[in-house]
Amino acid sequence: MDIRSLSTQRMLRSSYCKGSKILVLPVDGSHWINMKVILEQLHSRGHEITVLHSAKSWYITNSSSIYTSIHIPTVLDEMDRNFYMKMMQDVMDCRGHPTFIRSFCQHKLITMLLKDMHKITSIMTNNIFEDETLMKTLKDTKFDLMLTDPAFPMGVILGGYLKLPMVCNVRWINNGESHQSIAPSPVSYVPISGSELHDQMDFLERTKNMLHYLYNLYELYVVVNPAYTDLFQKYFPPGTDLVSLELSADIWLCRGDFIFDFPRPTMPNMVYIGGFQGKEAQPLPDELEAFMQTSGEHGVVVMSVGTFVSVLPPEITEAIAAAFAELPQKVIWRFDGDKPSSLGKNTKLVKWLPQNDLLGHPKTKVFIAHGGTNGMYEAVYHGVPVLGLPLLFDQFDNLLRLKVRGAARVVEVRSLTKDNFLEALKDILENPSYRENIQRLSQLHRDRPMSPMDTAIFWIEYVIRNKGAAHLQSAGFSLPWYSYYCLDVAVFVLAVTGSSIWGFMFVCRLLCCKRSSKKIKPE
Amino acid sequence: MDIRSLSTQRMLRSSYCKGSKILVLPVDGSHWINMKVILEQLHSRGHEITVLHSAKSWYITNSSSIYTSIHIPTVLDEMDRNFYMKMMQDVMDCRGHPTFIRSFCQHKLITMLLKDMHKITSIMTNNIFEDETLMKTLKDTKFDLMLTDPAFPMGVILGGYLKLPMVCNVRWINNGESHQSIAPSPVSYVPISGSELHDQMDFLERTKNMLHYLYNLYELYVVVNPAYTDLFQKYFPPGTDLVSLELSADIWLCRGDFIFDFPRPTMPNMVYIGGFQGKEAQPLPDELEAFMQTSGEHGVVVMSVGTFVSVLPPEITEAIAAAFAELPQKVIWRFDGDKPSSLGKNTKLVKWLPQNDLLGHPKTKVFIAHGGTNGMYEAVYHGVPVLGLPLLFDQFDNLLRLKVRGAARVVEVRSLTKDNFLEALKDILENPSYRENIQRLSQLHRDRPMSPMDTAIFWIEYVIRNKGAAHLQSAGFSLPWYSYYCLDVAVFVLAVTGSSIWGFMFVCRLLCCKRSSKKIKPE
Repeated sequence: MDIRSLSTQRMLRSSYCKGSKILVLPVDGSHWINMKVILEQLHSRGHEITVLHSAKSWYITNSSSIYTSIHIPTVLDEMDRNFYMKMMQDVMDCRGHPTFIRSFCQHKLITMLLKDMHKITSIMTNNIFEDETLMKTLKDTKFDLMLTDPAFPMGVILGGYLKLPMVCNVRWINNGESHQSIAPSPVSYVPISGSELHDQMDFLERTKNMLHYLYNLYELYVVVNPAYTDLFQKYFPPGTDLVSLELSADIWLCRGDFIFDFPRPTMPNMVYIGGFQGKEAQPLPDELEAFMQTSGEHGVVVMSVGTFVSVLPPEITEAIAAAFAELPQKVIWRFDGDKPSSLGKNTKLVKWLPQNDLLGHPKTKVFIAHGGTNGMYEAVYHGVPVLGLPLLFDQFDNLLRLKVRGAARVVEVRSLTKDNFLEALKDILENPSYRENIQRLSQLHRDRPMSPMDTAIFWIEYVIRNKGAAHLQSAGFSLPWYSYYCLDVAVFVLAVTGSSIWGFMFVCRLLCCKRSSKKIKPE
Repeated sequence: MDIRSLSTQRMLRSSYCKGSKILVLPVDGSHWINMKVILEQLHSRGHEITVLHSAKSWYITNSSSIYTSIHIPTVLDEMDRNFYMKMMQDVMDCRGHPTFIRSFCQHKLITMLLKDMHKITSIMTNNIFEDETLMKTLKDTKFDLMLTDPAFPMGVILGGYLKLPMVCNVRWINNGESHQSIAPSPVSYVPISGSELHDQMDFLERTKNMLHYLYNLYELYVVVNPAYTDLFQKYFPPGTDLVSLELSADIWLCRGDFIFDFPRPTMPNMVYIGGFQGKEAQPLPDELEAFMQTSGEHGVVVMSVGTFVSVLPPEITEAIAAAFAELPQKVIWRFDGDKPSSLGKNTKLVKWLPQNDLLGHPKTKVFIAHGGTNGMYEAVYHGVPVLGLPLLFDQFDNLLRLKVRGAARVVEVRSLTKDNFLEALKDILENPSYRENIQRLSQLHRDRPMSPMDTAIFWIEYVIRNKGAAHLQSAGFSLPWYSYYCLDVAVFVLAVTGSSIWGFMFVCRLLCCKRSSKKIKPE
C-alpha cells in the first residue's frame, strides 16, 4: 500500500461514524458489481447494511456475510441471453444506417427498453408500498441512510417516502447520463449519451446533439415520467414528480471522472468516483503466468467482451481467430461457445479470466473489449491500450472517449473482417503512441488527493454524520422550468422595455401632431 | 495536529515535486495577505518563488526570506485613506436610496473604480512587455508555473504571453465574482455580486438580478475589455481577448466554499480553498488574556472593521461606544482615531489585535466586523456569531451569506443608532440560535477530505507535475457565444422545421386547388 492510500485510510478512520444503519436499493447486473465493492468497504467499517432486492436477482445473493437481504415483491422475469442477442442484432441493424442517422436509431431502441423497465419499476415500487409488513420493518428500523443506484428510481422513491438522507451511486438516471439531470449541460459541448459525439463538435454535430437533446426531453416527459404518475398521486404530496424527488438526493457519487469523461459543468454535491474498483494486480494462477511468460518479448493480447454478451456471431469469431493466428503475440480470449476452426496455436480460450490481474501484468500489450465502463476504467488504471468492439448501450460512447485521446482504436462488429481487425490490432501493437497516451491517462487518473473508493466512503459517512447535505443542494432545483430559465423575467423585462419605447414614441407623435396642427392653425 | 491534517501532510509529501520555479504576480492589499500564506507553504516545500510587484507596494515587502522580488514599472500612486473615506461616503449616500435601487447605485460606483484600475493595469502590463531586460530575465528563467490573482489580469496576460502553466488564486475577476466568468451561472438562483440577493429569489428579485447581470455584461464588454484592446493587438495573435486568455488558466483556486457561498454550478478545474488561512488559536499575550478573564461568565465582544477603513464617522463611533457601555460584557475594539467621549469602562481600545487568536478564545461571544471575506471565514472557522457593519464592496454580500443562515445580524452604518446597534448586539448575545447556527457552519466547513490549504498546495503541485491541466478545461471555453448558446443551431432547426411546415402546407393547398378545379370542370 503506498503512502497516499495509507494516509487517506488514516484520515477516513479519523472521521469514523460507527455502526450506522444503511438501507441499500441497488440495480442488478453489472450495476450490482459496482455497488457491492462499496458495500464491502462500508461493512469493514462497521456499518450495518440491509439490501432490498428481488428473490429472482441475477447477481445479488440471498446469503451474504456483509449484508442482510430483504426480498421485495418482483414482477420481473429473468432476462436471458436471448434478450441480449436480440438487442445486439437490433443494434447491429441500426449500425447499417448512415452515420448521422444510426445514433437516433439506437436511441429509439433504448426508448423501447426504457418504457418497459420504468413500467416494471413503477409496479415493483407500488408493490413495496402495499406490503404493510415490509413497510413497517423499513420504518421501524430507523435507517440512517438510503444508498441507491438511481438507474431505476425505486430507491429514490422509497428513500423520499421514508425521508431518509440519500446518497446515489450513479452513472445513469432516467434516460441518460446523470449530469443531464443534475448540472447545466450546454448542448454545444456536452454530448448527449448515445449520440456518439465528443466535446469538440462542428455545426452539424451540434445540430445532431440538439436533436438528441430534444428527443431526450420527449423521452423523459412522455415515456419515463408518466410511468410513475399514479404512484406519486397515491403516496406523495401534490406536485411531487420523479425529477424533483431525484434532485433531493444529498450526494451524487458519479461513476466517472474528468480524465475519462469530457470536462463539463458539475454541481457542489456531485463527487467523482470513476475507477473506484481499481486495484493493483495480484499474481496470476501458475498456469496462466506460465502462458504469459511464453509470449517472450512480443507480449500478450487479452480479449474479453463482457459478462452478458460473451458470444459473438460465428463469422465474426472466425475472423477474429484467424487474425489472432497471424500475430507473433500470445492471446488470451474469454470465450463461451463453439471453438472457431481458424483458431491459432498462440490463442488460449478461457471461460473466465482474472481481468484486473491480467491487465496489470507487464506482458499485456492490448486489451480487446466491448467498452463497458468498468473495463475501460481497468484499462485506464493499468495503462493498457484498447481495441474496442462496441456492441450495446454506452459502449460506443465509452470507446469514443479513449479513441479521441489516442488510447484506443474501434472496429465495428457489423463490418469486422479479418483484415480490418488485424490492421487495427497491429497498429496498436506497433505504434507506441497508443500506450503512451493511455499511460498518461493512467498517471492523471491516479493523481488525485484521495483514491476514488476513499472518496466514496468519505462522502457516504459525511451524509450520515451531518444527517444529510441539504446545504450543498442548488436552489435552482426547486424552481419551475420557466423561472429556472428566467423566461418569466425576460418576458416582463421585454414587455416593460417595449411598452416604454411604445409610450415614448406615442408621446412624441402626439407632440408632433400638436405642433403640426398648431402650425396649420395660423394658416 | 489532528490525525486528519497529519495524514494529508503525509499525502502531500508523497506527491512532492521539489524545487520548481514559481512566478507569482499578486494583487496588493488584502489580496496579498491571502497569497502570502500560500507562498509560505510553497516555500517550506522547497519551491523557488519569484514575486513580481511594484516598488511602491502597500503590503508586499522587497526583502523576504521566502521569495525573490522583481520590481515592475509602476504608474499607480499609493491610494491613501482619503480615497477609501471618499468611497465609503459615496456608498453611504447610495444606501439612502430605496432598497431596489441602492445596489445599482453601488454597482455604478464600482464601475467607475474598475475603469481606472483596468486602465492602470493595462498600462503597467504594457510597461512590462516594453522592458526588454525584465522580459529577457522572465523568459530565461524558464518558470514552471504562473501563480496569480486575476482580480487584475496582469498575471494572466503575462502568463499567457510566456505560455506558462497557470494557477489562479481567485475570488474576483474582471468585474465580478470568479464563477461568473468560468461556470454557467443561471440568473434565476445565482446572485450577481453586488446585488445583495441570495439564492432564493422571488420574481422581483430575479428581475433585479437579471438587470445586474445585463449591467455586468455591459461593464465587461464596454468598460473592462476595451482597456486591453491595444495591448492584445500589439502582443498577441488576432482573436485573443481578456476572457479567452483567462479561461486558459489550468486551475482556479477559488477563495470560497459551499458552506459560505450559495451552491451553484461549478467546473472540473475549479477547486475550493475558502478559509485556507484558518488555523487554531494561539495563546494571547498575558495582558489581553487577563482582560478576557475579567469578563467572567458574560464573555467578550470583539470589534474590528478592517484594515483600510479603521475610522468610522465620529457620530457612529459615539453611538457604538455608548451601546458598549451598557453591556455586562467586556469589549475589545480595534480603533484608530479620537477616543469616543461615551466610552465605557468595559471597553478596551487597541490599535491592533490578534484577530484569529481572539476569535478562537472561549470567552469571545460576538465578532463585530465589516464583512471582509477573510474575517468572515475566521468567524466561521471558530464558530463565532457576527454583527456586521458593512461599508464597501463585497461586504454587504458576504454578511448576507451569514445572515440568511441565521449566524449574523447586520446593521447599516448609515442608519446606525445606539438603540438599534444595542438591540442587534443583545439579540446575538442572548439568543443561542446565532451561536448554534455558526457552530454548525463551522463543523461543516471543517468536515472535508483535506484542509483548504493542503488542497491549494496539492493542485498547485498537480499543475507543475503534469505541466498544466488542459484535460480539465471545458471545450465550451473556445466556442463563440452564439455557438455556445446554440443560437446558430436553433435558428437552423427552426428554419428547417418552418420551411418543412410551409412546404407541406403549400403542397396541400396545391392539391386542394387541383381537386376543387377538377370538381368545377365537370360542371
